[in-house]
Amino acid sequence: MRRVLVTGATGFVGSACVKALAAGEWQIIATARKLANANSGNVAWRSLDLFDANQVNGLLSEIRPTHLLHLAWETTPGTYWTSPDNFRWLSASLQLFQTFAACGGQRFVGAGTCAEYDWTCNSLLSEDCSPCNPSTLYGSCKLATWTAISAYARQLGLPAAWGRIFFVYGPGEKRGRLIPDITAALLEGRPAPCTAGTQTRDFIHVDDVAAGFAALLDADCHGAFNLGSGLAIAIREIAQLLADQLGRPDLLKLGALPSRPGDPPALVADTNKLRNATHWQPCISLTSEVARKVTHRRLAGDAGASTRATT
Amino acid sequence: MRRVLVTGATGFVGSACVKALAAGEWQIIATARKLANANSGNVAWRSLDLFDANQVNGLLSEIRPTHLLHLAWETTPGTYWTSPDNFRWLSASLQLFQTFAACGGQRFVGAGTCAEYDWTCNSLLSEDCSPCNPSTLYGSCKLATWTAISAYARQLGLPAAWGRIFFVYGPGEKRGRLIPDITAALLEGRPAPCTAGTQTRDFIHVDDVAAGFAALLDADCHGAFNLGSGLAIAIREIAQLLADQLGRPDLLKLGALPSRPGDPPALVADTNKLRNATHWQPCISLTSEVARKVTHRRLAGDAGASTRATT
Repeated sequence: MRRVLVTGATGFVGSACVKALAAGEWQIIATARKLANANSGNVAWRSLDLFDANQVNGLLSEIRPTHLLHLAWETTPGTYWTSPDNFRWLSASLQLFQTFAACGGQRFVGAGTCAEYDWTCNSLLSEDCSPCNPSTLYGSCKLATWTAISAYARQLGLPAAWGRIFFVYGPGEKRGRLIPDITAALLEGRPAPCTAGTQTRDFIHVDDVAAGFAALLDADCHGAFNLGSGLAIAIREIAQLLADQLGRPDLLKLGALPSRPGDPPALVADTNKLRNATHWQPCISLTSEVARKVTHRRLAGDAGASTRATT
Repeated sequence: MRRVLVTGATGFVGSACVKALAAGEWQIIATARKLANANSGNVAWRSLDLFDANQVNGLLSEIRPTHLLHLAWETTPGTYWTSPDNFRWLSASLQLFQTFAACGGQRFVGAGTCAEYDWTCNSLLSEDCSPCNPSTLYGSCKLATWTAISAYARQLGLPAAWGRIFFVYGPGEKRGRLIPDITAALLEGRPAPCTAGTQTRDFIHVDDVAAGFAALLDADCHGAFNLGSGLAIAIREIAQLLADQLGRPDLLKLGALPSRPGDPPALVADTNKLRNATHWQPCISLTSEVARKVTHRRLAGDAGASTRATT
């Protein structure tokens, strides 16, 4: 039986990954910093503080996972780009990898980010052709983590993969991010000020990301792999879609906020590498997903549900 | 008064740097893991274990260095390329940088390596044009360190520079490296088996490296800078030079060892970036230095000195 230890398992991406893996042939040890031990089907929830090397060593020595899906990182919207904790997560990730390898681990998969790329490139971002040149501390520490882990993994003959997540959205997404914030404002009858929103981004549903990580765990390929939809959508299109679906186009204030200096006009993933290496393909459309969620929310709203956005 | 804390100060490169800095307007705190406290002119020698965060915090809080020259790393010849300690040095370097910044540090300079570059490129290696794609754990961890530190330094507005050392030689060089090993064999009358040695490398004297680090500390430029001579010399030329000078060409066995697979035909630095940013230029010629050292050794040898190589 393959045993996968998942870090950051209660997070936005982590929750979706545990759900995706639970449907497969896995024994899952789902971990997060503060968690009561619990078992549910093939998922064992365990508390694990990755900043505590003794705890890491203790749990991995006991469990001896064959696979590791490392998702834990600082992700507080707004502050994670610049948080000094990025340094701590880098060091903790190296420690975790080393312990995993020492405990007989066979395959490592970790969460990277499209912010590792050079965002001044104006083409599809491709793992093996596009240069990496992150402009943020977050992107730099993610890239540094992969640079070090991939080299050590190669040296050990332990296959390792790195899923570079693009603009992920879906259930469980925190406030402080585009879709939850606009949704919340419109539902609460507040104006939603936006930039002109002409920049295009690659939005991918969290369940497609989770399916990608599950595919990477199943495979034995080594390297970085984009987790994007491969589709460009303008920020203004998403905002208009939400406003139309929620019936409040009057509250949407496109152009009310200045563009961020240096904000790249397009950030879109070339997804061929992961499609070719596995059977994965993204299959949730942003347009239909927003429509479905809004309908669902309206029904819930009619029944007196909270207005706090959980899109 | 500018106060520079030097790590790895008793090492091969570190010793030369302390000597170079001592001649300038610096208050120097020279540190290494196991060291008795001592003062000598403008140099204070202090013990510092970089793997002990409390010690790092204690010393830097007390001294509050304005400048940091971070040279310490795993450097045991032969094993440093693959040592798992590369991970520890990466983490310790991040911790050190963070503490330095928190203690009011104003400029960081660290030791990188030409092994950060993609060695399959067949051109002069240039900081801003040549891709980085290290093939070793050592090169990867050095690159990861700089990726993370440069991003954090930029975010803090703390200028940081990274000196990528090429093939450094000179007094204090350890056995297990090219020049000391050939010298030792020839002095001891043993055969010195080598590869065909047609590959060219950029050899730079440790005093030129030290002058480069001193120039980087004095400047306020941010970025990676090559520390090489800019000159290509074939390994066989160096070997023949040593054999001729030591009068034992008969013991030199060029071609007796197979070429290492994947050993690149040429690794030479473009040195324009550092020359343009500072007044530095490498000025010690390998040929005349070898001749000078061999003459010196012969005289010492005639006086009954040890045959252990210290070239």
